[in-house]
Amino acid sequence: MISADEALDLVLRATTRLAAHEVPIIDSVGFIVAEDVVAPDPHPSYRASVKDGYAVVASDGPGVYPVITKSRAGSDGVGVVVESCTVVYVTTGGPIPEGADAVIQVEDTKPYSSTSNHSSMVEILTKVSPGTDIRAVGCDIKKGATVLKAGEKIGSSEIGLLATVGVTHVKVYPKPSIAVLSTGDELVNPDTKFLNRGHIRDSNRSMLFAACMQEKCNLVDFGIVPDNEKHLNSVLDEVFSSPIDVLITSGGVSMGDRDFVKPLLEKRGTMHFSKVNIKPGKPITFTEISVQRKNENFARKCLAFGLPGNPASCLVCFHLFVLPAIRHLSGWLNTHPPRILTRLAQPVKSDSHRPEFHRAVVRFEVDNGYGHPGFVAESTGFQMSSRLLSMKANALLELPRTASIIPAGSLVPAVLISDTPSFSLGRIENSMNFLSSSLDSSSQ
Amino acid sequence: MISADEALDLVLRATTRLAAHEVPIIDSVGFIVAEDVVAPDPHPSYRASVKDGYAVVASDGPGVYPVITKSRAGSDGVGVVVESCTVVYVTTGGPIPEGADAVIQVEDTKPYSSTSNHSSMVEILTKVSPGTDIRAVGCDIKKGATVLKAGEKIGSSEIGLLATVGVTHVKVYPKPSIAVLSTGDELVNPDTKFLNRGHIRDSNRSMLFAACMQEKCNLVDFGIVPDNEKHLNSVLDEVFSSPIDVLITSGGVSMGDRDFVKPLLEKRGTMHFSKVNIKPGKPITFTEISVQRKNENFARKCLAFGLPGNPASCLVCFHLFVLPAIRHLSGWLNTHPPRILTRLAQPVKSDSHRPEFHRAVVRFEVDNGYGHPGFVAESTGFQMSSRLLSMKANALLELPRTASIIPAGSLVPAVLISDTPSFSLGRIENSMNFLSSSLDSSSQ
Ligand SMILES: [Mg+2]
Ligand SMILES: [Mg+2]
Repeated sequence: MISADEALDLVLRATTRLAAHEVPIIDSVGFIVAEDVVAPDPHPSYRASVKDGYAVVASDGPGVYPVITKSRAGSDGVGVVVESCTVVYVTTGGPIPEGADAVIQVEDTKPYSSTSNHSSMVEILTKVSPGTDIRAVGCDIKKGATVLKAGEKIGSSEIGLLATVGVTHVKVYPKPSIAVLSTGDELVNPDTKFLNRGHIRDSNRSMLFAACMQEKCNLVDFGIVPDNEKHLNSVLDEVFSSPIDVLITSGGVSMGDRDFVKPLLEKRGTMHFSKVNIKPGKPITFTEISVQRKNENFARKCLAFGLPGNPASCLVCFHLFVLPAIRHLSGWLNTHPPRILTRLAQPVKSDSHRPEFHRAVVRFEVDNGYGHPGFVAESTGFQMSSRLLSMKANALLELPRTASIIPAGSLVPAVLISDTPSFSLGRIENSMNFLSSSLDSSSQ
Repeated sequence: MISADEALDLVLRATTRLAAHEVPIIDSVGFIVAEDVVAPDPHPSYRASVKDGYAVVASDGPGVYPVITKSRAGSDGVGVVVESCTVVYVTTGGPIPEGADAVIQVEDTKPYSSTSNHSSMVEILTKVSPGTDIRAVGCDIKKGATVLKAGEKIGSSEIGLLATVGVTHVKVYPKPSIAVLSTGDELVNPDTKFLNRGHIRDSNRSMLFAACMQEKCNLVDFGIVPDNEKHLNSVLDEVFSSPIDVLITSGGVSMGDRDFVKPLLEKRGTMHFSKVNIKPGKPITFTEISVQRKNENFARKCLAFGLPGNPASCLVCFHLFVLPAIRHLSGWLNTHPPRILTRLAQPVKSDSHRPEFHRAVVRFEVDNGYGHPGFVAESTGFQMSSRLLSMKANALLELPRTASIIPAGSLVPAVLISDTPSFSLGRIENSMNFLSSSLDSSSQ
């Protein structure tokens, strides 16, 4: 049986980035940019004041000077030349008129009140060196500078940078379209109030929908398909004639006499694996299928993941194999599941047969129990693959198959499956003084 | 001047959770659940097989037995009683008929071929103890068990749990409605191709939009407002007559003669602070405003954040003060910015006047340079608040005002401002063998 690493390699090797397309920047948040973005003009494009204050000739130094104009924005002060012993009122970001070579912040000036009722005079209190509080042309962004590199993810600062350089549309990789279906005669829709004996509500489909929604994928729901070969096959016909990039099924991959997912997918393409040496999730299957659709004169690649029906297995496999594929399709450069190392808060028993992805809640602690800051992991308890409560986790601990008790305090790798706030510290009392109070202990 | 901690306390104290409302579960992803959710029935609600195999009477042990029926789902095997020396074929998740007390997995059986052409016989090869591979009623979720606690965030596993227990609608805290506007005569829209002297493109509005979109807030765009007191005041009238919970402005909070944001907001409510001792972001202002709208017979609370116009200041303030408020409104229990501790990859100079939020890229490393796993931070370079490139960061290092060089390797707190994959390790070669190879070094 292949390992999780080998299986992921097979998945990623079969996965090709989707064709990039152009979108308005506001629709690009969370997407991967497909081309470098370069600044067409310098920023700022004019000499700009860093402060509210007075543009001066630095060598003049302290004294009372006439304020010859005000320069706040736009063409303010155009044509004005600041000569020695004259000043110009400027506001933050305002253009520096010709001749001035420094700004004195308003805090270092005093309104000058004279009896002559000459109101536009100011007293400069300090001397500064040339260049003080002036942003030179291009000091923030040089003309031609690369503000976004192909492969970067677009977040709020990237949107700000795109807006700054006047890029209103950007080429990004789209998100895959994903079909989701559940198989199993035991399944009924989640809105079923009273369950008959032998029935359970279909949780995997909603769960996979939610997981794919978090990646902003386009989703098509193919419902619950009974354990009937003909029926399943005709649903698969329908699936592969729709414009989807990925199919995720759950259930129907065990050794039961009506588990038809594997044989039916295998007939349609190249099955790269149908078992992986992991717990939970062993029966996962992955197939690469080439589909020629009506009205298209080229074959399109579909990736089909047959996930196990037990919900914890299903979601673990999603994180280990499907999510990396989705991210690869979406243009991510590093698509391996995100990992950290963590200490175990308590002893954990590892499986005797297969490497195990033990579900846990990790938290960053100032002291991980060994005198260092780091992650600490609490097991989510009983790890049966049908027990979805075990997936109220933010990490999957990677435990080798030792069949032994791994002692508390051991350092193990873990795949993070949740977002930042779930495992970070919140307040650190007096965080701004942390450094000084920790200088001793931090240098060991 | 108050500290960042004091300012955040003022913000959070003025912030009240929005009123919870019920939504279909598929619309609840990423929201905070407002009430405990309890399982109305046990899961599974019948004894279910863990494996594909045969339901047996455990005490029978190995032997050749007749397969008296098949039980895969639903009412299969209802009325059947498995008596000693008979077995029932079962599939994973299938109901266990009465009388049977264990399941033998198919791998531990052999099809029995006899000349008598009696095809429904099977050879059981192993003996197991009673209970083996049977999930008891309620073994995954007991009837009445709390599957979601009020205050938990709904992700994919929570959606799966809700579907499992048949909850199709769930009470969650909504996301706030947020108005965004930029002020400044120097601002032009981002789609402006050629900039005149004294003009810059408005990047803050798109940036704040993107940041709020990532929190799934409802957004209203009030555009660019010139530095004109009357004009700004009338836009504020319009803002506060709209159904918004939060106003975010940028610019107009400095000491310029046309910085009208502070005085105009102050007139409308309680200004909790108008300066914070941080770099960047000192001039941030926060006002609590009570608004009585037409057609509403109660006063509604609005939070108004006047952020600085420099884009790095603006986004730093968003992460430190606005995001916690948004999360508090949205029902989060811990709304302090998420923090970790990190080593510095290189020496960093701290400011002489104010505690500084130095923008950096942190990465988790197997060895942080001191023989321990942990975070390492690289500065994003020149930290001028107008330089948005400094915000291509995933963390804000919290540096005290020492005016000294903080040496490489120092341990400092950092606020994480990006998602998990941005700072995690990807592949760990042979992660499943990490533990055994690290047992020596991990126990120090
Ligand atoms: Mg099945
Ligand atoms: Mg301004």
